[in-house]
Amino acid sequence: MARWESGARERLQRAALELYAERGYDGVTVAEIAEAAGLTERTFFRYFADKREVLFVSQDEFEHLFLDGLDDADRHDPMSLVGSALASAAAMFSDDRRGWSRERRQIIAAHPALQERELLKMSALAVALTRALTDRGIDPTTAALAAESGVTVFRTAFAAWLADGEDRPFAQIQDGVLADLRALTGAG
Amino acid sequence: MARWESGARERLQRAALELYAERGYDGVTVAEIAEAAGLTERTFFRYFADKREVLFVSQDEFEHLFLDGLDDADRHDPMSLVGSALASAAAMFSDDRRGWSRERRQIIAAHPALQERELLKMSALAVALTRALTDRGIDPTTAALAAESGVTVFRTAFAAWLADGEDRPFAQIQDGVLADLRALTGAG
Repeated sequence: MARWESGARERLQRAALELYAERGYDGVTVAEIAEAAGLTERTFFRYFADKREVLFVSQDEFEHLFLDGLDDADRHDPMSLVGSALASAAAMFSDDRRGWSRERRQIIAAHPALQERELLKMSALAVALTRALTDRGIDPTTAALAAESGVTVFRTAFAAWLADGEDRPFAQIQDGVLADLRALTGAG
Repeated sequence: MARWESGARERLQRAALELYAERGYDGVTVAEIAEAAGLTERTFFRYFADKREVLFVSQDEFEHLFLDGLDDADRHDPMSLVGSALASAAAMFSDDRRGWSRERRQIIAAHPALQERELLKMSALAVALTRALTDRGIDPTTAALAAESGVTVFRTAFAAWLADGEDRPFAQIQDGVLADLRALTGAG
């Protein structure tokens, strides 16, 4: 990769987000994003399939944030495994990423096609987590419930992390949501 | 409505499902569905916005299957309310509907656009349930967790109900899944 392309992915993401915020998602072309980043369209398409994908990390990368946590887990009950996956993913959402994530959320909230993409991402994550749990010998229904519950905790924590005025670290928020879920569903 | 149109909605749904199973979803037009049902295209569009919607009940109707259960609930803790909503919805999924639902599931499983529609339906249900719970004074995070957990139980039970060889009633399966979730997430 040529020297001037270093950080190309991040420059394209930053340029896209700024243009989407300024002119609306529908009003921006790939050519304009590439130009604003000082890169070519050809380079854009080396990193992203289209202008929607620039707002999403690759599905594989996203899933591995969670699945990597299972490899290190020394416990074997389903919710402990899910807890390990969530803790592993939390490391990705550092405080210096929160501003970018807040801007991204605003763009997505305004566009149904982007919301669908986000739902598919979460659904595919639940499928991947379910498979990882069944691979460890957990029965399919229990694995699905544990995986879906984990995704619910992640999504709820993610929304809370981005709320106006929230400044607690992601991991702390997510631990709280997981404890809330356990108290809520375990009661009664 | 003219007499010959009685049961038009159901005839269109049945005709669509048969044609989709026979020729594949992409290979079927609204005109063909209407013709197979002995009705006009104009009548089709009185009931459904497009050939995708013929596989889905209206979102409003779907959400009310669940929300109606909240009106009758005499308990006030979040998971008991969710349990009432789930029990209310279970009444819709009678044994004589299982065959239709199994065929429908096969069509949906083969088409990403239909899977997206199903995900959106479930996501909107979670939003509606969350709002119904916050309207009852439950804090937003707890409401979201309870609603999402309820949707997870419903989806898991629905998939189990349609599994090959399964013949237990929907309500019984769903009660079991809810108990599994409580045992799973409440433990530890």
